[in-house]
Amino acid sequence: MRIFNFSPGPAMLPEPVLREAAAEMLDWHGTGMGVMEMSHRGKEFVSIADKAEADLRALLAIGDDYEVLFLQGGAIGENAIVPMNLFGGHTVADYIHTGEWSKKSIKEAGKYGRVNVAASSEADGFTRIPERSTWRLTPGAAYVHICGNETIGGVEYHWTPDVGGVPLVADMSSHILSRPLPVGKYGVIYAGAQKNIGPAGLTIVIARKDLLDRALPITPSAFHWKEQAAADSMLNTPPTYAIYVAGLVFEWLLAQGGLPAIEQKNIAKAKLLYDCLDGTRFFTSPVRREDRSRMNVPFKLPDPALDEPFLKGAKERGMVQLKGHRSVGGMRASIYNAMPIEGVRALVEWMKEFERKHG
Amino acid sequence: MRIFNFSPGPAMLPEPVLREAAAEMLDWHGTGMGVMEMSHRGKEFVSIADKAEADLRALLAIGDDYEVLFLQGGAIGENAIVPMNLFGGHTVADYIHTGEWSKKSIKEAGKYGRVNVAASSEADGFTRIPERSTWRLTPGAAYVHICGNETIGGVEYHWTPDVGGVPLVADMSSHILSRPLPVGKYGVIYAGAQKNIGPAGLTIVIARKDLLDRALPITPSAFHWKEQAAADSMLNTPPTYAIYVAGLVFEWLLAQGGLPAIEQKNIAKAKLLYDCLDGTRFFTSPVRREDRSRMNVPFKLPDPALDEPFLKGAKERGMVQLKGHRSVGGMRASIYNAMPIEGVRALVEWMKEFERKHG
Repeated sequence: MRIFNFSPGPAMLPEPVLREAAAEMLDWHGTGMGVMEMSHRGKEFVSIADKAEADLRALLAIGDDYEVLFLQGGAIGENAIVPMNLFGGHTVADYIHTGEWSKKSIKEAGKYGRVNVAASSEADGFTRIPERSTWRLTPGAAYVHICGNETIGGVEYHWTPDVGGVPLVADMSSHILSRPLPVGKYGVIYAGAQKNIGPAGLTIVIARKDLLDRALPITPSAFHWKEQAAADSMLNTPPTYAIYVAGLVFEWLLAQGGLPAIEQKNIAKAKLLYDCLDGTRFFTSPVRREDRSRMNVPFKLPDPALDEPFLKGAKERGMVQLKGHRSVGGMRASIYNAMPIEGVRALVEWMKEFERKHG
Repeated sequence: MRIFNFSPGPAMLPEPVLREAAAEMLDWHGTGMGVMEMSHRGKEFVSIADKAEADLRALLAIGDDYEVLFLQGGAIGENAIVPMNLFGGHTVADYIHTGEWSKKSIKEAGKYGRVNVAASSEADGFTRIPERSTWRLTPGAAYVHICGNETIGGVEYHWTPDVGGVPLVADMSSHILSRPLPVGKYGVIYAGAQKNIGPAGLTIVIARKDLLDRALPITPSAFHWKEQAAADSMLNTPPTYAIYVAGLVFEWLLAQGGLPAIEQKNIAKAKLLYDCLDGTRFFTSPVRREDRSRMNVPFKLPDPALDEPFLKGAKERGMVQLKGHRSVGGMRASIYNAMPIEGVRALVEWMKEFERKHG
């Protein structure tokens, strides 16, 4: 039996994707070898990588003025790789601080240049996105960095900040592909794959081509966007199997109707869960309504002593990984693209049953 | 039908490993989820990672004075990450130049400190390992770097250089786990997984603990050995599925009798192929006998015009990826642990048949 896995990442993958990967493990399309065994420079794997890139470009409507790179190191790796690639010729970068993931980005960037925290919701316990009008941006900054969706805090930008002519850089690890995205408004978008794309170990970077001339001389070749772009992300051996599985996920997303259709499903799933939270005083959501994440839904029970019985009962009902991050406590349900609405329904039913018993 | 894939990497994996991975794709050990979907911090995946590390330590007899890290970025990534982690408090590092992979290492290291090429076989066309007596090492160097096996040139160290008190650092991407290894004689060993370990996207670093205090301040946290060691390689989300498959490979190697038994098989496979090369003037091996690699066997036909018919006939007989690297031409057979001796036999038979026809 498959369970409902509410893990913040790595997370559930669509069952048809896993079935296809399993079926092709020893022999991909009659080649006599599995994808994991293919030379990354052979025509078989090149066709897989090309199709994955084309499908991702189609899903997000990425223009020709952007490079799409399949790299390694995750978002925490990119937290260093972004400033290495963008600080050249500049002295300061602006960061918007909205929680744990912004904090990591800010810490890493400080190794390569001066960081200005242009706005922060720390005083509000990271329960909101700071209004654009309060941001104190630096004219001529290298870039403005945001975390599009804070996986731990559960706050999400439902709007695209206008930062004038300075490139907007976004860590979108936990909400990329959950809805259509105006890529053209961003300078760089990056995402670890293990939430909404595919297996851990793959990092996607979407970078506007005119920004590729700014790398610091200390940038490692394997993480140098311009060098990787020139080598079709094969300057070093790419994480081939993760690219293949991500490609299967892209095919699955397209077959669902693409991101407009996926967004409707995600809206419906999130509404189900937030309506449950809003319809009771037993469970509480810490996040300001306008900034609530559709992907990661943190909530609390009235008494931390109830956390264990809640988790235990959830597990008995086939639901796991609902425990909140240790830094904030409580519960968190991560409901990425691959989580079926049945999983959210099962969770809401258990929440109501639990409230009847303990409320 | 499974083919014999002589790719230099990614390369063949043992069939039992692929069968187990396929069988467990949707449900690992009755958990209701596949390994790709597991939180890296959940007890299920932690048990997989712990077992993989323990089995690797057992295979290589790695002492407690060494950290074993599961990272990302491949050998080309490590070419930068090694100097970032080891140059602190030092000004120069010694490199032994034995071919294409040494060259890449040397280029990257120059971004972080001064590089002394202490010996080179360039004048000999990289067909040998320079004698230890010719190395002009720098007293007090940060480290001495070697490439244990040059995947393209097919030269391999069959001995461990004594470099006194300076740490010896080795890129062993293409021959790690092919034979027992005196780990204690090395400061740091690193390897991309996609040749003899598992899927591309996983990088293994084995580092002596007393060397972990030398990182430069610009080292990204995701690639900072000491920080990763403190976090059990989970400072960022590790490439979980690649670690799982590598773990299955480690189990397979142990079941074969460990590295002493594997070495005997590798000796037998290499002997079969080199005996064929030495028994004819039709095919030639460019590499000095004492330095011939057991893993990557480059060879040439008497006329480059014969390359295509040779490759075509090989493919018709179920053998692929025999074309040599574009920088050296000719043929190359990569015969890692997972290549059965039947594959080498089939190749040798085809070589003899081809010689009878064209010799």
